[in-house]
Amino acid sequence: MKQAIVVRTDIGMGTGKLAAQASHASLKAYENSHTASQSDWKADGQKKIVLAVASEREIHELAEQARREGLPNAVISDAGYTQLEPGTVTALAVGPGEENLVDRVTGDLSLV
Amino acid sequence: MKQAIVVRTDIGMGTGKLAAQASHASLKAYENSHTASQSDWKADGQKKIVLAVASEREIHELAEQARREGLPNAVISDAGYTQLEPGTVTALAVGPGEENLVDRVTGDLSLV
Repeated sequence: MKQAIVVRTDIGMGTGKLAAQASHASLKAYENSHTASQSDWKADGQKKIVLAVASEREIHELAEQARREGLPNAVISDAGYTQLEPGTVTALAVGPGEENLVDRVTGDLSLV
Repeated sequence: MKQAIVVRTDIGMGTGKLAAQASHASLKAYENSHTASQSDWKADGQKKIVLAVASEREIHELAEQARREGLPNAVISDAGYTQLEPGTVTALAVGPGEENLVDRVTGDLSLV
């Protein structure tokens, strides 16, 4: 079991901002997942990987692929108080889910 | 309501590693919190800030202060598969909790 967190690297987020957006995505996708998946993932050590995309379009395409695979997912938009325009899409989380399913969606992406 | 995520900046974590450790801390402290706090925090937009410390000692001291304030908290150690020695303490999350209480613990720290 794992969760992939996908962040945009094309919008100039600082390290802390990026980490906060990743945390939002992780928690929201977790809350969208089934209790059984949550338990299995915790038993596996809550594996998380953080991956990069360079456009909003990729975030939406990956979210659509996650939905097709039946994986929990969450797209995050920033409220825009700092750094970014309000509503800017910043991050996506896919899973927790079976590693092979998550890899079908995010397996081609590079680590941040 | 807010949650403060505190990460070590003295151990050379890359951006993705730091974001993953922050996400671990955020989720674990969330799970240690009461349902009422979770609901109030969500209603407030799940505010998260990411702050820096430069030692493991500070992580433990801040966790102890959070416990004294009755705030949910979680200290994260890395499994050590990549980048770090196994068991390295990487991050702490404090809250969700009332902003003034969280600030009593982490209000003197700088943003990452």
